[in-house]
Order: sequence, then C-alpha cells, then structure tokens
Amino acid sequence: MSRPLGFEKPLGMRDVLPDLLKKQRKLEDKVKQCMEQWGYAEIMTPTLEYYDTVGGASATIDNKLFKLLDRQGKTVVLRPDMTAPIARVASSLLKDEPLPLRLMYSASVFRAQAKEAGRNAEFVQLGIENIGSASVDADAEAIALAVSVLKAAGVQTFKIAIGHVGFLEGLFEETVPRKEDRDVLREYLHCRNYVGFRQYVKELRLPAENEARLRELLKLRGGKELIARAEAITVNGQARRAVANLYELWEALEAYQVTDSVILDLNMSSNLDYYTGVLFEGYAANQGFALCTGGRYDGLMAQFGRPCPATGFAVQMDRLLEAVGDMPVQVEKSLILYRASQRQEALELASRMRMEEGKVVVAQRKDEWLAADFSQYTDIIDLTKEGA
Amino acid sequence: MSRPLGFEKPLGMRDVLPDLLKKQRKLEDKVKQCMEQWGYAEIMTPTLEYYDTVGGASATIDNKLFKLLDRQGKTVVLRPDMTAPIARVASSLLKDEPLPLRLMYSASVFRAQAKEAGRNAEFVQLGIENIGSASVDADAEAIALAVSVLKAAGVQTFKIAIGHVGFLEGLFEETVPRKEDRDVLREYLHCRNYVGFRQYVKELRLPAENEARLRELLKLRGGKELIARAEAITVNGQARRAVANLYELWEALEAYQVTDSVILDLNMSSNLDYYTGVLFEGYAANQGFALCTGGRYDGLMAQFGRPCPATGFAVQMDRLLEAVGDMPVQVEKSLILYRASQRQEALELASRMRMEEGKVVVAQRKDEWLAADFSQYTDIIDLTKEGA
Repeated sequence: MSRPLGFEKPLGMRDVLPDLLKKQRKLEDKVKQCMEQWGYAEIMTPTLEYYDTVGGASATIDNKLFKLLDRQGKTVVLRPDMTAPIARVASSLLKDEPLPLRLMYSASVFRAQAKEAGRNAEFVQLGIENIGSASVDADAEAIALAVSVLKAAGVQTFKIAIGHVGFLEGLFEETVPRKEDRDVLREYLHCRNYVGFRQYVKELRLPAENEARLRELLKLRGGKELIARAEAITVNGQARRAVANLYELWEALEAYQVTDSVILDLNMSSNLDYYTGVLFEGYAANQGFALCTGGRYDGLMAQFGRPCPATGFAVQMDRLLEAVGDMPVQVEKSLILYRASQRQEALELASRMRMEEGKVVVAQRKDEWLAADFSQYTDIIDLTKEGA
Repeated sequence: MSRPLGFEKPLGMRDVLPDLLKKQRKLEDKVKQCMEQWGYAEIMTPTLEYYDTVGGASATIDNKLFKLLDRQGKTVVLRPDMTAPIARVASSLLKDEPLPLRLMYSASVFRAQAKEAGRNAEFVQLGIENIGSASVDADAEAIALAVSVLKAAGVQTFKIAIGHVGFLEGLFEETVPRKEDRDVLREYLHCRNYVGFRQYVKELRLPAENEARLRELLKLRGGKELIARAEAITVNGQARRAVANLYELWEALEAYQVTDSVILDLNMSSNLDYYTGVLFEGYAANQGFALCTGGRYDGLMAQFGRPCPATGFAVQMDRLLEAVGDMPVQVEKSLILYRASQRQEALELASRMRMEEGKVVVAQRKDEWLAADFSQYTDIIDLTKEGA
C-alpha cells in the first residue's frame, strides 16, 4: 500500500464538525427567517469571480482578496463578500427589476490569511442589500433589522454603533488642509488608535480651534444628544447634511423603538472609499470584534453601470456563534437494535417514528456494533431483549 | 467616471435568482430533514483543498477537477465532491469516534468545464456517508434512504438502478483474458454504448460460451429474478460473492419495502476504481441524467490511514429541481404603505405581523415608490388611504 494521503488543508481552511454545525445551522435559520420577514429574498452568486469584475469593486482590501490563477492564467477570486457580486447581478440579470431591490444571502466568503494570523480564510456571512433607495428610511430599516436579527439569534447584550462618513469627511475637510494628513487620521480612527490620532493632530500644529474640534470628535460617542454637539463643531455643507441625516435617522430609529440598542459613534471610520454615508457596526457586550457591519454605499452600483443608492449589512456567523455562547442543541436520536429475524419489525418501527419527525438509527446487534458510540442516542430500543 | 466593470463570470459559474433559490432551499430542507431522520449528522469541509491530499482520492476524473494555483504555487482544488474530504475528516479530527459514522452534507461542489459544454461548474450536492460498516445492511440503508429522499423531495416516478462492481469484474476476469480489453468494455458500459460493447466483444473472438455470457450480461436489467440469471453465467469467487451479496441486499430491501422503487442493472459500470461493491443510481421517469449516485467504496478510507469499509450517495440538486418540476413557492408578502405621520403606526403593525411569521415590507409613499414592483406582494395595506 502506498503512503497514506496527508490531512493538510490550505491555510486558514477548516472543517466544521456536527456539534458546532448544528448550532450554526440553527442560528442561520433564525437570522434568515428574520431577514425574510422583513421582505428580503435570498439570492446566491458563484464562489468564484473574476478579479477584474468583482474583486476590485469589493469592500475588501486588495491584499486580503483570495486570489488564484485559473487554467487560462486569468486571476480569479474566491468571493470576498456578497455585496459586489449582488451589485453585479442587480445591474445585469436583475437590471429590469424596479428598485428598490431587497435581497439577502447566506454564503461562505473568503479572505487570504497570512501564515502567522491563524485566522479563518473561509467563513459564513448572512446579510441583506437594499438597492435603490437614497432615503434615510432605508438606513433605519437596515439598522432596525440588524437589531432584530441579533435579538432573534439570542445575543443577550449588544449595541449597534452608528457613524457617518459624510460627517467625518466634512469635519476633516474644514479642519485639516492636506489630504495625506486626513488619510492618516482616518486610518488612526479605523484602528481605534486615539492616542496616535491625538499625537498626530498635535504635530499638525493646526489653529487651536480646529485642534479642539478634532479632540471633541473623539468624544462623540453616545445618544441622541451627540447630534447637537456634532453640529456645533462643523459648518460646511457635507458635514451639515450628515448631521441633518443623523437627526432624521434617529427619529426613524425611535419609530422602530430600537434606540435602546443603538449608540452614535461619530469617529467611527472605514479605511475604504466604499461607504458613502451612514455606517454601523454591532458589538456584543462580551466581544471585541464586530458581529455585523454595514452602511450606505451609494457609489458601488455606478461601477456596474446602474448608478443608484444602496445600503446593507452582513452578520459574521463565527462571531455570532461566539456571542450567543452555549446553546442547547441536544439531538433527540433513537437507536433500534434488532436480531436478524426482527428486521422487518425494526424497520417498520423506525419508519413510523420517522413519520412523527423522530430521528432513528436502525442496527442489527452484531459484533461490529459493540464499538458503536451509544452515548449519542437519547433512547435505545433494544428489540433483542424482548423475546429473550 | 471610468468604464463600468464587466458582468463576466468564470466559465460555468452562475447566479441563482430568488425564485429558483426559494425552490432549491425548500428541497434542501426536505432532503436534509430526511437524512437527519435516518440518524445522519451534518458536517462541513472547506471549499478549497490541496490537490495532493483530496484531489487524487476523489471519485472525480482528474481532468474534471477544478484546479487552481495558490500564492505559494501549490495546486489547490475547489472540492469536487464531499466524500474524499469527509474521509479525510473521519481519519483525522474524528479518528477517535467509534464506527460506524453516519455523516451528511449539503454543499457546493465544483467541476472544471470545457468551453463548449455550457455546463455548470458549481452545483449543490446533498449526500450521506456511512463509514465503518461492511454489512449489506449499510448498502440497503443507503438505497432505502435514497428512495426516501426522492419521495420526500416529491419526485413522482423514479427508479434506483443497482449494480455491483464485484459481479462485473468477476465476470470479466473469467471471460476476457486481457486487462486492456476489460478496460475498454468497462468504458463502453459506463457510456451505455451497448452497440460498441457487442461489436468489441465480437472482435475479441472469444470462445462462444464466453461471448454468450457477455451478451447475456447486457440483458441483466430487471427484478429479483435476475440474480439467478446472473448466477448462471459466473463461476469464480468474486462474482459468486457478489451474487450472494445481491441476494442478501434484495432481502434487506424487501424488509425496507422499497423493492417497487429499485431495479437491478448488472451491467452498470463506473469508470473509476473508486467503487468496490454495490453501486446505484437514481433516475426520474422524465430524465436521462442520474438524480443521485452512490455505492460502496471500501478502499478510500485506507488512503487516509484509517482502513475501513464505507458506503454513501449524493443527490444532485440541479437535477432534483428539474425532476420535481413546477413547485408552488408563492411567497406571502405584505406591503404596508404609510404617510410620514403614520410611520410609528406602520412600523408597529409590521412588527406585530412579523411576530406571527408574516413577511412584511414597510414603505413610505413617496415618488421613489412609484417604480416599485407591487406585483411581488400578495397583500397591500395602504394606510395612506385610510385617513384620506
């Protein structure tokens, strides 16, 4: 016999065993049901996309894209997210469907991982895209649905933090003259490196008033009262429109009765050009990573030739599983043991139990069964003992 | 603005739109539920595997493997099936679990497609693996479960055709001296080219008796009575064991009460070394392609260093969808239209309806809504008219 094959998997790839997968499927069902109840219809796109088509339009940094070479030497990517592929579909196969489109998905997405990181390269995201509405109602719907999804999944304590690209960009434009400096500051915020941010601002030797406004920015984390404080440190059009937008958004969230679950975080920043307005992230009380991320991306659809506004969010299944913690997923499973002469009887019994939604394994009592793991069964029906 | 991105997808890749996906999910649920009721636990493996590890062990012909190059220049494959990956897991992560293991899956699998073929390169398979049992009971369970799955999915008329690798190999060994000729004959059978088979047999100028046995082989398609006819044309050990195996199998299938749904097809052949005993294929009355394929593969586990017998089958979702045909998947979805002042009222109504499992979209009546596709809603609740 030749040497056995190895067990190695490509970097960051993993197997999901039955106990964990059971929990995952349960959560997936809850999340999907919730999204469907808000009128979103599921769609699926291919695992593989051309780098030139979808890769560049994605919200994933280029060096995180899982790039591969196909037989023709063309660069393909394992889909890094579902937003760009769905934008592609909305602009092609669905181009004649009237807007807004409410679409949802449950899919594996992929990120290239560095050797050291030990992170997953493939993970499941569930999310929605609301394509075609510029209204703050669509932003509010996305946030309220995110709240509803996390509640349905059973996350005990969480907050959705809400930021606004327009506010941050507007404030930066009127306080920091050089684009390069704004990029650095944005990156500091993205990494939540507030010490670095303050230090950098200091070194810029800005007029005292501007420096004060940027320091105030770091404090803009809280409830509705923040909006007036945000308004007080900005004057330009973009920032003012953002503030007005946030007022309207908060009002809508009040109507949804979800303001207990949200918090404004006006120094929240994305390191991508992707988001264009309201953006948000959901955090469980016991976790440092975002459970879900989303926001408005009014520029993406134009890249596929159907310019229109859009908003959406995605839930990270791995993190949701972690946030939900222990979950009873005991499987009620019966084992029917029989002697050769009792086979018919055993199979008929199993058939009846399955008709009543039971999970049943049928096995002839033989030597090979002595090794079986009986602990997996909640009930053992041993027909061989009856006639003994 | 730069040139819009293209809509191209890699060869054979496709999008699944909501109407079709709805049907697919419904079928997936039914099939999964059925497999779970027979005691199978779901498992998931990565989309990407090393060619060296899983690629070669797969039941897929090498030139159909979807090979790609990773960044390190290593050849990876998009999983061509789930059987080899599950054998890998059963031999590594699950190596301490007692046998038999009953595992199931629902996953995308991939096949490289030639430019002309126009076939799907990615498609969904649902299947089971029963690892560790050499007993004919395991073969019978797999076939009876396949029958149960196709019934649960709603396939009206179908047959599971059952063959046996041992019978065919035994008969070939005692009738056709040269291995090369046996390989050609096996390929003719695999392609169901019976004219070619007969012609080739004739050209071999075998003893008249052997030629007659091979011609008789082509007729071995039918019910239980075939087993005696099969027995009559073979004498060697392997073929005789296969015949005894088929008698036992039929008896077990009688106990499962599924013999109405099966047919023996003793010239059924796989073009791979993969299957080692009973093999089977399910066909709907209205289709030329197999809905499901399966069989015994007692050699695979040894390749991963945990030698043991195994059996299983996979259902092709695309073909199942086709076989089931039109399926009512009308989504009951309501639209609540409101004026700005009625938002709270509209959202509360939606919330109540969702608590009762309703699917509801809430929208303020504005210009942007005039374009909306109202036909997708089964019910429109127009609050704006009430007060008018």
